Amino acid sequence: MYDGVVQELIDELGRLPGVGPKSAQRIAFHIIQTESFDVSRLAHVLQTVRDRVRFCDICGNVGEQEVCQICSDPRRSQAVICVVEEPKDVVAIERTREFKGLYHVLGGALNPMNGVGPDQLRIKGLLSRLQDASVEEIIIATDPNVEGEATATYLIRTLQPLGIHVSRLASGLPVGGDLEFADEMTLGRAFEGRRRIDSGRVD
Amino acid sequence: MYDGVVQELIDELGRLPGVGPKSAQRIAFHIIQTESFDVSRLAHVLQTVRDRVRFCDICGNVGEQEVCQICSDPRRSQAVICVVEEPKDVVAIERTREFKGLYHVLGGALNPMNGVGPDQLRIKGLLSRLQDASVEEIIIATDPNVEGEATATYLIRTLQPLGIHVSRLASGLPVGGDLEFADEMTLGRAFEGRRRIDSGRVD
Repeated sequence: MYDGVVQELIDELGRLPGVGPKSAQRIAFHIIQTESFDVSRLAHVLQTVRDRVRFCDICGNVGEQEVCQICSDPRRSQAVICVVEEPKDVVAIERTREFKGLYHVLGGALNPMNGVGPDQLRIKGLLSRLQDASVEEIIIATDPNVEGEATATYLIRTLQPLGIHVSRLASGLPVGGDLEFADEMTLGRAFEGRRRIDSGRVD
Repeated sequence: MYDGVVQELIDELGRLPGVGPKSAQRIAFHIIQTESFDVSRLAHVLQTVRDRVRFCDICGNVGEQEVCQICSDPRRSQAVICVVEEPKDVVAIERTREFKGLYHVLGGALNPMNGVGPDQLRIKGLLSRLQDASVEEIIIATDPNVEGEATATYLIRTLQPLGIHVSRLASGLPVGGDLEFADEMTLGRAFEGRRRIDSGRVD
């Protein structure tokens, strides 16, 4: 145990996800010993984030305004909404520069064991956005894992009766990957979703 | 890239040692999304640490006073000084409750490749503590790695002419370890430092 405030700092850092006691100690001593490390800036940014960052009233993405930059961008198509689990998924998709529609951030995936049901996700908000007739397609881009698949299945079942096109991101071999190292599930999905080179998808 | 302050927080967190861009993002979203996470407390502790924590004028350990708790504790023996690299080594040794003397924290180990020579360590401070005739023994407890060994060798060469007893922590098999998994160096050291069960160390 360290004296007073040093131990307090180690304890506080240890509360962060992925930071164990050893890392917390290393980070604390880095902060204490590195003259050039700007503690005030980190402290200030932490406070500012809590004061200013909020979730977009429309899509649930993080931002500093009531309506985020993407939702308020008139150049983006209002006809397509891409549904993702987390704000970081929005950033990942934006990086591809492939998608020019809007997003809807659920805030997680269904996980009944951890108490995350449909009411804990921003699903009602998504349904209310569909009142607007301009929405033509919903692209479901939840993670390709158990929770993400369950969430996708739930959304498909909820959205299909509304007469809107619902699609799901393709599963298959990652580009740059090696076929022999692909797991069976991925390889199976790659077969399922194979495309004819002349006319597109095999149905 | 995220909007404004979110990206700023990710950048600031990414400056911490052992925190890569992915961890920085995860920590940032944890801070943003966890209502119960007390941002003000972390921000406050960070600021307090920088304002209040200082190095002990005598031993170089971290603390909040000019002279640390250990140096100002009258119950501790003034006759033995244990020399360590970092404040965290003091904490590790204190945890054993075996040592009742004083410490001297060098602030690192000799590493000429990274520009750390004797002048970058608190070696002058150690020598000036030896002016006081009450010091009888120096225990060198630098890390058992290349830099730590080099530092120990340098200290031994500097201290021996002063007529003070100098000792070095024993190297050997870690307690609870498995002989077959010990590396050759450790096993070699364990042989070198073997002790007769009747009369102590073999010289």
